[in-house]
Amino acid sequence: MHMFDSSKTLYINEDRFRKDFEILAKIGSTEDGGVHRPALSKSHLEARAWYRDLILESELEFRCDGAGNRSAFLACGPKNAPTLLLGSHLDSVPYGGRFDGPLGVLAALETLRVVKENGISLPVNLEAIDFTDEEGSLIGLTGSYALAGKLTKEDLDNPRGGRQALLEGMKRAGLDDASFLSARRIPKSLAGYLELHIEQGPRLLKKPTQIGIVTTIVGICSYHLRFIGRANHAGTTPMLDRLDASQGASSFILQVRQTILEKFPECVANVGNIHLSPGAFNIVPERADIALEFRSAEPQTFSILEKTLIGKARAAAKQFRLGLESDLLSKHSPTPLSSQAQNAIEQAADALGLNHIHLVSGAGHDAQALADLCPAGMIFVPSQLGISHSPKEFTHWEDCVNGANVLVGATLRMANTIITE
Amino acid sequence: MHMFDSSKTLYINEDRFRKDFEILAKIGSTEDGGVHRPALSKSHLEARAWYRDLILESELEFRCDGAGNRSAFLACGPKNAPTLLLGSHLDSVPYGGRFDGPLGVLAALETLRVVKENGISLPVNLEAIDFTDEEGSLIGLTGSYALAGKLTKEDLDNPRGGRQALLEGMKRAGLDDASFLSARRIPKSLAGYLELHIEQGPRLLKKPTQIGIVTTIVGICSYHLRFIGRANHAGTTPMLDRLDASQGASSFILQVRQTILEKFPECVANVGNIHLSPGAFNIVPERADIALEFRSAEPQTFSILEKTLIGKARAAAKQFRLGLESDLLSKHSPTPLSSQAQNAIEQAADALGLNHIHLVSGAGHDAQALADLCPAGMIFVPSQLGISHSPKEFTHWEDCVNGANVLVGATLRMANTIITE
Repeated sequence: MHMFDSSKTLYINEDRFRKDFEILAKIGSTEDGGVHRPALSKSHLEARAWYRDLILESELEFRCDGAGNRSAFLACGPKNAPTLLLGSHLDSVPYGGRFDGPLGVLAALETLRVVKENGISLPVNLEAIDFTDEEGSLIGLTGSYALAGKLTKEDLDNPRGGRQALLEGMKRAGLDDASFLSARRIPKSLAGYLELHIEQGPRLLKKPTQIGIVTTIVGICSYHLRFIGRANHAGTTPMLDRLDASQGASSFILQVRQTILEKFPECVANVGNIHLSPGAFNIVPERADIALEFRSAEPQTFSILEKTLIGKARAAAKQFRLGLESDLLSKHSPTPLSSQAQNAIEQAADALGLNHIHLVSGAGHDAQALADLCPAGMIFVPSQLGISHSPKEFTHWEDCVNGANVLVGATLRMANTIITE
Repeated sequence: MHMFDSSKTLYINEDRFRKDFEILAKIGSTEDGGVHRPALSKSHLEARAWYRDLILESELEFRCDGAGNRSAFLACGPKNAPTLLLGSHLDSVPYGGRFDGPLGVLAALETLRVVKENGISLPVNLEAIDFTDEEGSLIGLTGSYALAGKLTKEDLDNPRGGRQALLEGMKRAGLDDASFLSARRIPKSLAGYLELHIEQGPRLLKKPTQIGIVTTIVGICSYHLRFIGRANHAGTTPMLDRLDASQGASSFILQVRQTILEKFPECVANVGNIHLSPGAFNIVPERADIALEFRSAEPQTFSILEKTLIGKARAAAKQFRLGLESDLLSKHSPTPLSSQAQNAIEQAADALGLNHIHLVSGAGHDAQALADLCPAGMIFVPSQLGISHSPKEFTHWEDCVNGANVLVGATLRMANTIITE
């Protein structure tokens, strides 16, 4: 083995990378070109079994923890050296696309293969990890939170996909609550974390730019809001006597969009679901239950946005003489990513002659679970039409290769920054 | 038997009427004081079996037709005389109240008993009918439409409660499609129709007034509207790039109320249900499906209102760059009731010293199925708080008795108008 020379650029094996990607995309594939691999479903476990075989074929060490996270390990560093984690996830949203997750896992594996094939020794060991349930069919960021020691018994008791679904998934995978809680790693064992991912938005495409360097992962907050009126006969009750929950809800939904456009141009918000009850043609709606989510990259703005939106809901309820109940369901603060990782990514892109911008990730990622344990960074490549979580999700193969080569370069640079610090 | 003397006022037997009412209210009763007797359910059939026994105990003739309509018949007229129908329905909305329907059936039966006990002969025969499925758990106004010859095979094939529920109900009741279509009566066999019902609204209470004389049953029209945008990631898609179906739907829901208040003060409209899809916190809604219903007593206004509301939906869709699909689900034109019946009711109320107003029925009733076959009329009594289709539905017993006595008086007056014409 020889030490890494930063003047030399290493490249992944494109043909091998593509062949692996295409075989993986067939596992749990749907007719419309997408994949259906919810966490710990049969198709997801089939993808994970295939990944284990690929690791062994590549003559890398296979590792698995109590949260079901599965890794290729390459001991390219000194004994007891910390590990630089690379990775993403093989699970998908229900009926999702083939790029979201798998691209990062296979690029991570490819990086280990290239380092191994070139006989490079580094100040750190390398690990290419597939995290469990990033997408949240069960809990969300489950494997990365478990590894970071942030997954709690309460999270396992109240999974957003329902406890029954979690139990069934754990049974299929041979896992249990105790094993998940045992997956915690000591922070000093981690030298850093790098992840390649599709952007899932239109910004790289609009510029156009080849590589995105993520500065921050947005904070995400979700609420359940309930406007409460009174059910009544929709034929015989005069309009002015009605306490119609749909009016407050509708006014609020319009104001959410207007508020973001006028006062929070860097944020986004969504009302993704409404349920009216009793829900009949001829009954004035008594209750309107609303699913609200909003996101901001800046902690103070995040907090002001929360107060503003809940205030708007309260005012809309008052205007139509309705009651309002609000339940905070989850709040993940904005997560700044490491400048060390950003520098490594930028240098790697420059060395490859790829243009780049810094941007905020509007979606959540496993990197946010790790960012306060070790330097974490993310590389984005363009999503065609900005579409994701859909079978229509697509990234040109050239962009996938560019991203993987940047991951290789950033990995080598970051690994060598560790000892110089 | 002797002929009726219009200077004499007949009264129902209050104690017997109340006892019957309270026994009936226990069949299918719910813990909160309501009843759950959807058409042709077990509890509804139990109520109908009890009604048959009550008819036989009262020494009246029991009749039943192919639509499941069940009647007490009193041959108080000449041979081959037409029948003056009195009645309402014993079915309820799911988890409804105890007054909506049963009050009219028992007052009708009480009328026949009083005429029989007083040995009165009339120019017509009398029949106290319980119509099948007025509330529409299966189709709506089913028994009265069948009797009027207006029920079609298409109605039976596409019931709003689903074909399976209709088949199961028919099986329980020993009925079938052919029997329903055979229930048609010859119009000249009908001398008229009178129905006592609770108002289900607050107008009698607001005046306050003891008796409502219905002039018209409103026209009711229902639509299924679908706003169509594009599903996308709610974190990564900029607000201005979204095609969010919830925005068009919300704007429309607010405009429905404003349009009625500003331009159609005599009409009502309701959006009773919304369904957003895919329906997740983090996905921009692609589709918003809306249940719209509106009502008007005046045919020309009814038609203008329809055009206006559909136009508003189209404009709301356009404003937010959405598609719009609309399906007309049902349209019942406004139904004026007989002035002969209104006069008979007014004279009966005057004779009892009860104050009264003329009003429009905002709800649909079996009377609308019969109104173009024979002179049809309706008597309303006050609904406390204007509430109905709810276990909280309540009418003071004194008002129930007043209504039943007006039905007796109006029946005798109308029966005697028949020969004088």
